[in-house]
Amino acid sequence: MTAEDANPDARPTASDGSGYRDDSEYLSGAIDLLGILAYGALTAFERIAEDAAQAPTLADKIELATAASSQIEHFNQACRHLESLGAEVMAAMRPFHAPFDAFHEYTKPKDWYEGLVKIYVGDGFAADFYREVAAFVDADTQAVVMEVLGADELNSYVLAQVRQGVERDPRLAGRLSLWGRRLVGEALSQAQRVAADRDALTSLLTGTQDRPGMDLAELSRMFSRLVAKHTKRMAELGLRA
Amino acid sequence: MTAEDANPDARPTASDGSGYRDDSEYLSGAIDLLGILAYGALTAFERIAEDAAQAPTLADKIELATAASSQIEHFNQACRHLESLGAEVMAAMRPFHAPFDAFHEYTKPKDWYEGLVKIYVGDGFAADFYREVAAFVDADTQAVVMEVLGADELNSYVLAQVRQGVERDPRLAGRLSLWGRRLVGEALSQAQRVAADRDALTSLLTGTQDRPGMDLAELSRMFSRLVAKHTKRMAELGLRA
Repeated sequence: MTAEDANPDARPTASDGSGYRDDSEYLSGAIDLLGILAYGALTAFERIAEDAAQAPTLADKIELATAASSQIEHFNQACRHLESLGAEVMAAMRPFHAPFDAFHEYTKPKDWYEGLVKIYVGDGFAADFYREVAAFVDADTQAVVMEVLGADELNSYVLAQVRQGVERDPRLAGRLSLWGRRLVGEALSQAQRVAADRDALTSLLTGTQDRPGMDLAELSRMFSRLVAKHTKRMAELGLRA
Repeated sequence: MTAEDANPDARPTASDGSGYRDDSEYLSGAIDLLGILAYGALTAFERIAEDAAQAPTLADKIELATAASSQIEHFNQACRHLESLGAEVMAAMRPFHAPFDAFHEYTKPKDWYEGLVKIYVGDGFAADFYREVAAFVDADTQAVVMEVLGADELNSYVLAQVRQGVERDPRLAGRLSLWGRRLVGEALSQAQRVAADRDALTSLLTGTQDRPGMDLAELSRMFSRLVAKHTKRMAELGLRA
């Protein structure tokens, strides 16, 4: 029996996840976001480790193995914060198994370059989206999200690799441009699936009666920002969005 | 032009790797040991990440992904110390590609349990051997070796998993006992290959005119210690050595 059971009218704190519907929904949204980050980091570990196994040289393998292992640090950061919110890590990740697993199933890289573009373009797009959502969670959660997403040491390596590859074989540019579009298409379709399933997460963005969110015009501007950043990343790689 | 070029008789320091044959050979041996640890950690990352991909549950996957990523920390520790000795990391690892790659090629786990036993028994045996060699290097290198080898957070997990597996299916014990013997056999045969190729490393153990090492009786006692520890590990898993 907890203090709260004894006094059902006690105002809940952010760490027990119960109480007034609004607070609870807000907390659930933050937990969803962290659950996505945690499971996303785990699947990123697995995928980048697979890419590392296909690396053309030992130096490339070391780059990717290091990047894979830093995903486990991100995973641990997300887990620690989930626990501090009173959430159970495995439960928080569970709703996102299906969309992430489907995304990776539908976007298996056929070669080294597709793997690198997936890291740069796919993970970049996802990270931008998580940052947008993080604007609507509490400051502590936001700090964790930004910290987890802040470490992109791999990017300059990937950029140099893909540019070199495209320079050596210009036909690669066409194939990788299509691939980049496909990655974002699949990511958006899985994101819609998540949005439809996870009201609390969606309501972080759209707000509730008591908490401001984005209206339709703002949502549309957010998507424009995401697309603009994606286009910029593709251009950096020498590809067309 | 360095100070040493100016005065060819200057006594070399441990960090330039040149000069009197004995010092240089001693340094070469330490660099070999660190090169083995570095490349061993990289291949361990790759192998454990592969096992993680086959994990029966998400909780198991997290255990192994975490263990794989800590191998990258070990790799980085070994690299930092190699650099502090004035050695080039890629060059230091190169002599050990063939024996490690051959070991892993000949000991591909056929299932989840063989993967776990390989981690516990194979890596445990290798670590014991590296610790024996580390008794003959300088204190700083020894400290790095011990630190890299000290972290075996995975062991209690592996122990519990294998014991449970053997309890559920007693026939597994026979197969895994054979597997453990094969792992050590392959490890010894690759170790002999390394010993034959790498005089500096071997002379750490056997000594030189100016530096004491093990005589044959001591070498034989070292092997007895390695075998005793291996037998103990197998027994802990419920297997026969």
